[in-house]
Amino acid sequence: MSDGGDGNRSLGHTPFKRSRSHFTDRITADGRDGWPVEPGRYRLVVSRACPWASRSLISRRLLGLEDALSPAVADPIQDDRSWRFTLDPGGRDPVLGIRYLGEAYDRRETGYPGGVSVPAIVDIPTGALVTNDYQQITLDFATEWTALHRPGAPDLYPQQRRDEIDTVMAEVYEDVNNGVYRAGFATGQKEYEEACEGVFRQLELLADRLARQRYLVGDTITEADIRLFTTLVRFDAVYHGHFKCNKWKLAEHPVLWAYARDLYQTPGFGDTVDFDHIKRHYYQVHTGINPTGIVPLGPDLTGWLAPHHREELGGRPFGDGTPPGPVRPEEEVPPQGRP
Amino acid sequence: MSDGGDGNRSLGHTPFKRSRSHFTDRITADGRDGWPVEPGRYRLVVSRACPWASRSLISRRLLGLEDALSPAVADPIQDDRSWRFTLDPGGRDPVLGIRYLGEAYDRRETGYPGGVSVPAIVDIPTGALVTNDYQQITLDFATEWTALHRPGAPDLYPQQRRDEIDTVMAEVYEDVNNGVYRAGFATGQKEYEEACEGVFRQLELLADRLARQRYLVGDTITEADIRLFTTLVRFDAVYHGHFKCNKWKLAEHPVLWAYARDLYQTPGFGDTVDFDHIKRHYYQVHTGINPTGIVPLGPDLTGWLAPHHREELGGRPFGDGTPPGPVRPEEEVPPQGRP
Repeated sequence: MSDGGDGNRSLGHTPFKRSRSHFTDRITADGRDGWPVEPGRYRLVVSRACPWASRSLISRRLLGLEDALSPAVADPIQDDRSWRFTLDPGGRDPVLGIRYLGEAYDRRETGYPGGVSVPAIVDIPTGALVTNDYQQITLDFATEWTALHRPGAPDLYPQQRRDEIDTVMAEVYEDVNNGVYRAGFATGQKEYEEACEGVFRQLELLADRLARQRYLVGDTITEADIRLFTTLVRFDAVYHGHFKCNKWKLAEHPVLWAYARDLYQTPGFGDTVDFDHIKRHYYQVHTGINPTGIVPLGPDLTGWLAPHHREELGGRPFGDGTPPGPVRPEEEVPPQGRP
Repeated sequence: MSDGGDGNRSLGHTPFKRSRSHFTDRITADGRDGWPVEPGRYRLVVSRACPWASRSLISRRLLGLEDALSPAVADPIQDDRSWRFTLDPGGRDPVLGIRYLGEAYDRRETGYPGGVSVPAIVDIPTGALVTNDYQQITLDFATEWTALHRPGAPDLYPQQRRDEIDTVMAEVYEDVNNGVYRAGFATGQKEYEEACEGVFRQLELLADRLARQRYLVGDTITEADIRLFTTLVRFDAVYHGHFKCNKWKLAEHPVLWAYARDLYQTPGFGDTVDFDHIKRHYYQVHTGINPTGIVPLGPDLTGWLAPHHREELGGRPFGDGTPPGPVRPEEEVPPQGRP
């Protein structure tokens, strides 16, 4: 999750620690936490810059939850009140009517002292935050929102593979998803080096696996692929330079680069990615590591569209299901954010 | 030239301007400025981090001026008194007996208000700076120090090619050598983008030339190659990330990467390069753009030693001359600075 604290993080000498989600209610088929799955009841608040939020955009597309759950896309640049809806007319989310995501947090818990993070799901009738549990939200999309899935939706968290998926996701989380942040926000050389070494060590292990098989677990796309993808797609654009994860560029690694392109070119993945939001967020918000706020011109993004030849490894991207249809016109990423 | 001002450069809104060398006396065969070429009389003060100083280290090796002109290698990390000899026993240059290069400037001009820069040539008998004219020093090595060249020294500035060499060098200087600094020290987005675009535009033009011929001018190594090399060898290590010149890595460009490796593997080029000095200098001194002072682990440097196949383009690296002999043991770059 991306909270407002990242940007203004003081450069003291404590290692980077990711905040735990505070609001961990679950929206379930049986509504046992008081939040039943219902079409049109909730609003998914994201930033396209944020890897944790981007998971939920990809899952939503793959599963065909567009009709059931509408998205609010925050401005990639937070201000001192955190995520805001300055991309919308009048600076307000048209459904929730609020200017800042923090207002939904306030309606849930007055005076909540923690950070405001995305992804967040807000109950539209009350305007209150339901959950910002970035680790659980997509698992629930896959397993609790099934009644609202499109016909042909893939099984992103198949029962018989969950142990393996959970194991892989734990490694991806610790060393890769969060590892790049620990490297980038390190305040000491040793802390940085340990995190950076961990990123590349884990990526090489994952590459060994992906040299033999098209996807991380089994022969279909799963939640594990979504979680690796959201870091890989940001790798050369921001983690390589801004977070100093620069042993090599993704584009220099034959296996991982082909794997990432394969997913990027799969409907539901690349069509959710906005490189403009990604670059502006990281380079302009983290003034502690980029005081000028200058956003680099590179890298060249056209390579994302190059043939990947991963079909040769076999695999059935959607298993017994089908790819999602086209992106809704109102959800299309603007041209400057695309390769 | 690298002066102490780079690191503490305030982030105001004036475009980066490189200081002109203040001391432009020339050491010549006829001694017309009062400084005749003489073996053992002068001390060449460099930083291996600095591209402008590195030119002089390469020329000195190629021309075999090791006996005639000894080097003083400054610590890559300047302090508030600029370049210092903290790598030497007792923190003093053993020949000049000074702790700071600035002391030689003071002996030349009391109260000189400008920056202290390398390369600098100091008159050993008086301890006074003779010249810090980074554009002229290597041209004079090639054309005025000829009586002291080794047998088989190449002609790095051949009379019949000077117009073409000067033209190429002017483009390389403006857009590449200095362009990366203008990009890296830009304080505004527009200033950065113009400089960065210029860097890559010029590199592509140079690559067109180098796709057809092994060296920039004629079929032998000239001063123009030395000047392009000193920027290229730093490109992926520091300019790509730290200075945000990140449209592509040198290692991603087939022509320029092979050209740079060819030179790197030519005696007199790579054996002067210290990647440890380069990385520590840029990342630790420029706190205005890297406040944490953390030095990245990457990039992987082993590629510098990979075959380049540029011999297939023909060319006679040293013309009618020969390659220089091995590096003197006392001048060898320590293992941590080598690929």
